[in-house]
Amino acid sequence: MEPGRRGSLALLTDLYQFSMAYGYWRAGRQREPAEFELFFRRCPCQGGFALSAGLGECLAFLRGFRLREPEIEYLQSVLPSTTEKAFFDYLRTVDASEVTVSSAPEGSVVFATVPLLQVKGPLLVVQLLETTLLCLVNYASLVATNAARFRMLAGPDKKLLELGLRRAQGPDGGLSASKYSYIGGFDWTSNVLAGKLYGVPVRGTMAHSYVMSFTSLMEVQPRTLKPLDGDEPVDFLPLAELWLQRVCQTLRVPHDRVNHGELAAFVSYAIAFPHNFQGLVDTYSIMGTGIPNFCAVALALNQLGYRVAGIRVDSGDLGKQAREIRQVLRTCSANFQVPWFATIPIAVSNDISERSLEELMQEGNEIDMIGIGTNLVTCPLQPSLGCVYKLVKVNGCPKLKLTEDEEKMTIPGSKVVYRLYDATGLAFMDLMALEEEPPARAGQEVAVRLLGRSEEARRVTPMAVEILHRTYFKDGQVCQALPSLLEVKSHAQASLSLLSPAHKRLQDPEPYQVAVTEKLHFLLSDLRRSSR
Amino acid sequence: MEPGRRGSLALLTDLYQFSMAYGYWRAGRQREPAEFELFFRRCPCQGGFALSAGLGECLAFLRGFRLREPEIEYLQSVLPSTTEKAFFDYLRTVDASEVTVSSAPEGSVVFATVPLLQVKGPLLVVQLLETTLLCLVNYASLVATNAARFRMLAGPDKKLLELGLRRAQGPDGGLSASKYSYIGGFDWTSNVLAGKLYGVPVRGTMAHSYVMSFTSLMEVQPRTLKPLDGDEPVDFLPLAELWLQRVCQTLRVPHDRVNHGELAAFVSYAIAFPHNFQGLVDTYSIMGTGIPNFCAVALALNQLGYRVAGIRVDSGDLGKQAREIRQVLRTCSANFQVPWFATIPIAVSNDISERSLEELMQEGNEIDMIGIGTNLVTCPLQPSLGCVYKLVKVNGCPKLKLTEDEEKMTIPGSKVVYRLYDATGLAFMDLMALEEEPPARAGQEVAVRLLGRSEEARRVTPMAVEILHRTYFKDGQVCQALPSLLEVKSHAQASLSLLSPAHKRLQDPEPYQVAVTEKLHFLLSDLRRSSR
Repeated sequence: MEPGRRGSLALLTDLYQFSMAYGYWRAGRQREPAEFELFFRRCPCQGGFALSAGLGECLAFLRGFRLREPEIEYLQSVLPSTTEKAFFDYLRTVDASEVTVSSAPEGSVVFATVPLLQVKGPLLVVQLLETTLLCLVNYASLVATNAARFRMLAGPDKKLLELGLRRAQGPDGGLSASKYSYIGGFDWTSNVLAGKLYGVPVRGTMAHSYVMSFTSLMEVQPRTLKPLDGDEPVDFLPLAELWLQRVCQTLRVPHDRVNHGELAAFVSYAIAFPHNFQGLVDTYSIMGTGIPNFCAVALALNQLGYRVAGIRVDSGDLGKQAREIRQVLRTCSANFQVPWFATIPIAVSNDISERSLEELMQEGNEIDMIGIGTNLVTCPLQPSLGCVYKLVKVNGCPKLKLTEDEEKMTIPGSKVVYRLYDATGLAFMDLMALEEEPPARAGQEVAVRLLGRSEEARRVTPMAVEILHRTYFKDGQVCQALPSLLEVKSHAQASLSLLSPAHKRLQDPEPYQVAVTEKLHFLLSDLRRSSR
Repeated sequence: MEPGRRGSLALLTDLYQFSMAYGYWRAGRQREPAEFELFFRRCPCQGGFALSAGLGECLAFLRGFRLREPEIEYLQSVLPSTTEKAFFDYLRTVDASEVTVSSAPEGSVVFATVPLLQVKGPLLVVQLLETTLLCLVNYASLVATNAARFRMLAGPDKKLLELGLRRAQGPDGGLSASKYSYIGGFDWTSNVLAGKLYGVPVRGTMAHSYVMSFTSLMEVQPRTLKPLDGDEPVDFLPLAELWLQRVCQTLRVPHDRVNHGELAAFVSYAIAFPHNFQGLVDTYSIMGTGIPNFCAVALALNQLGYRVAGIRVDSGDLGKQAREIRQVLRTCSANFQVPWFATIPIAVSNDISERSLEELMQEGNEIDMIGIGTNLVTCPLQPSLGCVYKLVKVNGCPKLKLTEDEEKMTIPGSKVVYRLYDATGLAFMDLMALEEEPPARAGQEVAVRLLGRSEEARRVTPMAVEILHRTYFKDGQVCQALPSLLEVKSHAQASLSLLSPAHKRLQDPEPYQVAVTEKLHFLLSDLRRSSR
């Protein structure tokens, strides 16, 4: 991976896009007006919703979309030798200046079949955009959704730290995971570059290797620390050793079994970061050495006027350990009369999944911060969102894919999507209408057909109506002020708050209603009949 | 995603690496000689092996490893304000010039606990490398392994096409998937940029949107095609229509039910790519319209001297459909006396997984090419390889992580890894020895202890011995000629061929033996005792 190795993303696509582009060009159809929709067919992880994400990156891609000379040369080398030279001359002129993109605002709650993006423009160009747009939306939306699920499980108060970089699909996989987990509801990332590039708050403490790298107290260097309110440096090591004796007595832990390398590591770290000391207590035995050493250093810091930042556990039964650790902290708090000691934040991590987090939360735990890596960034419950990009109109004609596989069908035509709200302010239906239809209005009854059900039309009266999509890209330019990452994150939580808990349940949610107007329903039926 | 947005990868790491670096620096330990090993603890996907991959990218990262001014400034903004200024001055001087990296050659078969990489150098620097190296090795090795598993299932003759770009973790995820699937045994990728950057052969045909974009035969333009051995262009459309009548008669398909848009699409594509026509036959009904249209166009091409490239099916029961299609091709071959028609390659894709591929292969199918996307690039059987990077030595002292979690233990010390071969030429054991021990030799008996078993020492006599690791990076430079991607791919297949089929079984493989020498065993026992 060499930084900047990419000329542009214009070739980050499937070869068949260029084969088809040639087919269109040879048939003189390259400039026919066309429209594609990007959507998914099933909500991820057996859930009832997804968060749309990746729009910002799609817009950056569109702005820079052009084929440079080395890219054209490469294409010439891989397309059949019979491909006409003039086609490549045409490709040299291609950009996104005639492309229009509408989208749900980034971070919006979205549902199966409803387009996340609507892409209009010359047939050849919008075809070429397919794979890259899918690549930029699919993972972003998936990981944002996954993060939102973890956030719902953890409740609003726990701090959530994303730490999946080492398990992601390479550098961009890791960066995307950090960015979109934040959107979905995480507080922090461990990924420094994500902090620098996107402004996601970064956090981190120490690793086992740091603790392991110390063997004896001789290695503590420097040993002095200034009290918070004093100028005279104190030799911190004997202070910590003194506190260790008291702690061992109080906790009835054999003092001679405590690991000296670990104590040396904690003391060194505390001297380096007196305001930010967080101890990783499970390199050796947690209760036999990790916790006594931590408490000793924390109490020594307390004596100098500092408060510690927390404790971290990275293995074993996290709920049980947190309870035991909290008990020890309370004992020390009472015994040494240090009130804040009882509430030292406990951070845990150890391959936490939705299921293990759910169990942790049910146990009524003593955990304050949760670090999640692999199961957040790789989304094992559903490792791909499965968005598709389908032609819905070309040359003014609505288009339909009607295969033997019912699930792979598409909804034809240029559409407006209305989100309908009920009297309690919750969203209850996404309604797709043809562009030429009169707009849905609050308080006005409308006849709809629910997708996926063969029943008759039903009539609904929304109390409020929102048009889901906005035009974000036009005439080669981004034409909406784009929100900051923090604004996108807030929008995601706001959008989720307008969805009934029944639809947000992680398992067996009540399906959210997606419907089409009568007019769109009849168009669909007509096209089905005429295609058969 | 903006190309070239990354200054370098030096910040693509967890924040705690810098916190620990500061801890080391404050303790004056930054230049202590240290050694880390990168390894995984369990073979992926319940299998018996992995392929090591990502080395080339690790070396490129090391070569460029330096913290630039904007990166230092960012670090200053996120580390505690008490962090000394001189630390950042020190970071400005840090690079990988004193780092030595040994590795198994890229593409080698590797096993749990055995290091893929051994990284030696100043403590602070080698600590800082952890997350990035893990990020570059984990996914690369996982997807190469996954590709090798698909290749073993498919057998050596089927052509395998990687087409996962749209489902990968963003651009780099997609690029890595294409590159490392090729190493693992795939023939082609659909990802054009992977072709350009890495030389992976690219392939592609047409999408449903291409077929859907045509409505009537009026849209076919141009309509003429020169015969292969002639100068006089022929109007190709009536020729295809004529053949369609004959095909419909032969196949007893109602001629009036055949979709004209689809025929128009096929005819246009054939005129554009007369040497490379491959028809996607499942946009509408496969047997009712896709296959008749395909055969008509293929036979019309045949009349002008061209052979088609293949048929593609992207939905439904692939094995059954391939058999039915083959039957039709044979019928046409016999009926119209076109011998090659019976063997037109059939390509399939439709969310193919290990399980569905296994079923396809057991059915004795008529499939020639298989496209695999989501289940290749996201590795749903195990979405992360789970490599770790552990300290094994610092300042001359072997180090051990000895937690209450047995599985998370490490093997201490600087080690040499020998791969031992039996009389049949197959590898039967990876033996880890301390660096200072006399080398293992062919024909010489050696006492070993198998990992994960508490039994006594056993004695083995290898017929051949290979040292697994080579030094790839020294003095800031790559110090081995690096193989081409094709050479890495060949090495992977060669390395796999030296492994017994019992270890390569995809389910319930016989575990490959990983052992330590008596001397390493006793070091491990001593350290365990003294840590407890």
